[in-house]
Amino acid sequence: MEREVLVANVDKEMKIALEKYEEPKDIKRVLSGMRPTGKLHLGNYFGALKTWIELQDRAECFFFIADWHAITTSYHDTSALSENTVEMMADWLAAGLSPQKATLFIQSFVKEHAELHLLLSMITPVRWLERNPTYKEMMENLKDRELATYGFLGYPVLQTADIVIYKADTVPVGIDQLPHLELSREITRRFNRFFGNIFPEPRPFLSKAPKLPGLDGRKMSKSYGNCIYLSDSEEEVNKKVRSMVTDPARVRKTDPGHPEVCSVYAYHKIFTPEEKVEELEEACRKGEIGCVQCKKELAKNLNAFLQPIREKRIEFLRKRDELIDVFVEGSKKAREVARQTMEEVRRAMNFLSV
Amino acid sequence: MEREVLVANVDKEMKIALEKYEEPKDIKRVLSGMRPTGKLHLGNYFGALKTWIELQDRAECFFFIADWHAITTSYHDTSALSENTVEMMADWLAAGLSPQKATLFIQSFVKEHAELHLLLSMITPVRWLERNPTYKEMMENLKDRELATYGFLGYPVLQTADIVIYKADTVPVGIDQLPHLELSREITRRFNRFFGNIFPEPRPFLSKAPKLPGLDGRKMSKSYGNCIYLSDSEEEVNKKVRSMVTDPARVRKTDPGHPEVCSVYAYHKIFTPEEKVEELEEACRKGEIGCVQCKKELAKNLNAFLQPIREKRIEFLRKRDELIDVFVEGSKKAREVARQTMEEVRRAMNFLSV
Ligand code: SF4
Ligand code: SF4
Repeated sequence: MEREVLVANVDKEMKIALEKYEEPKDIKRVLSGMRPTGKLHLGNYFGALKTWIELQDRAECFFFIADWHAITTSYHDTSALSENTVEMMADWLAAGLSPQKATLFIQSFVKEHAELHLLLSMITPVRWLERNPTYKEMMENLKDRELATYGFLGYPVLQTADIVIYKADTVPVGIDQLPHLELSREITRRFNRFFGNIFPEPRPFLSKAPKLPGLDGRKMSKSYGNCIYLSDSEEEVNKKVRSMVTDPARVRKTDPGHPEVCSVYAYHKIFTPEEKVEELEEACRKGEIGCVQCKKELAKNLNAFLQPIREKRIEFLRKRDELIDVFVEGSKKAREVARQTMEEVRRAMNFLSV
Repeated sequence: MEREVLVANVDKEMKIALEKYEEPKDIKRVLSGMRPTGKLHLGNYFGALKTWIELQDRAECFFFIADWHAITTSYHDTSALSENTVEMMADWLAAGLSPQKATLFIQSFVKEHAELHLLLSMITPVRWLERNPTYKEMMENLKDRELATYGFLGYPVLQTADIVIYKADTVPVGIDQLPHLELSREITRRFNRFFGNIFPEPRPFLSKAPKLPGLDGRKMSKSYGNCIYLSDSEEEVNKKVRSMVTDPARVRKTDPGHPEVCSVYAYHKIFTPEEKVEELEEACRKGEIGCVQCKKELAKNLNAFLQPIREKRIEFLRKRDELIDVFVEGSKKAREVARQTMEEVRRAMNFLSV
């Protein structure tokens, strides 16, 4: 029961945050990051990357690989961390992020994030963090207790530092991140009240991209093993699409189908030309097309979408040093901005400066 | 009642720590720090500085001004922070710490402390920090609730980072700090278990100096207003010594006294030559000396002790830029050591290194 109350609260907090949401106008500086926990899948692409790629053309953007955040939940085994970091670089560039348009960097290369995190920690009440839905949920879940570390409790503080150190006014987030950003706004206001108006309050920017289900119809998530990765080969994509769940009412090819409950159809709407989608929909409803054939059509279109990404990805990874160098250079640029902010912060807080 | 249970626990934790205590042998590298909260008094000198000054001749020592820690309890008003930092520099050098013997530096000038603090935060269970006596005590004290910040909860994590980033094997501490150092040892062991044997477990080193009471007989503490500062002028010292509490049994000069309950006598044992102390003791017991005269003798000897410190202090503050430069240079040296440790840590945790 307790548990249900908590989950209800989580939803409530999200609902409140959603009701307050207004798409930000006048976007000047954007910041967002991703934890390098493995290769990116289509859910990551449509949930975040696609929005970033659009934003890099209309605002000054800072995008970072959140390697410190990656430790928060996987401190027991960090063996894949540096490899995951490099894979993420390849995914980003192959998908269309450009170092000519945005500052692409690695969080742990900009130590100033850690410094600001420490300073913000001094003004953030513990109870604000304890009421964070993600933390409350985890504390409820006995087998996750091991994760109740000081760093996990405080990751919204680090997130706040990540954002405000660039004085970003806008942060692209998923709906589930809205309560965290609200907390960042509170911490920002508290800092500004004590030490002067240094940081803008960051506003959330919600992705308008459609949600893409996983192969089994649930949310696409690595832990469910239901993902299509940007790096999947043509054969892997074909095989995965063949395994997708469809309308359970369709036992025989001639059974009339209901595309609205079928994941394959959800994919067609994204990857298949509109008139072809209409044709498939009608054929499905009338029982005039088999799922096997319908999936073949999807696999073809999905591969057409993934092919250039896949090729660029391999190309970037082949020139691994150059790839890393792009992010090293980006980190230098980011650091310069962060350093300037920290000078301002140190002065405002009366630390000795020389 | 709750409160009494907690205080009893605090004492218990300290008792356990004290029972375990063994003076470390083979001291190679020492680290300790002080929060710059104002001018140093004799309690600080005998409680810490004197031990540091002795240690700098027998081990490699790192001593730092803990300006980040200073924010923990005074984030509401940091206006005096940079001035307090400079005053502390003058106190240290005037008292006898030497940049030729020890590395003297400023915590916030070595950002690597913040980085390691962040990494250690990821492996430190929240419940370890919640059971910290100082935190529990504060949470019990309703008017201190404002201080229940994330940074306050986590200051033992920062303290651990401060120590292990120099791979210090020994940390001079007061008795009340023993439980904190025990926690640092636990965090260190946990890190080593996950990522390999990188850090030595720091051992406490207790000061053998006698405890010096404040003017009113209580513990010397700025918040009681009962301190004699290293910077006090001759006149201030005279006046303060005149105001010291003595044996309450002595109403008239001829009343026999009990030096063992008199603060003035406790001071004589430190600042007055031995044969003179014996003479005063006898005269007091026999009612042959008045407290006024006894205090005059103390004031003279105390001033003789403080005079060279006072003069050097003024001299150092007159050359403020040179004074600061000593610590800037020390910070560079410290940083080089910290940077090397962090490279090792990053490799051990599999962060991307270039
Ligand atoms: S025909 Fe296509 S849209 Fe219809 S159920 Fe089968 S896979 Fe889904
Ligand atoms: S004579 Fe000296 S030692 Fe005796 S009570 Fe007075 S101040 Fe204390």
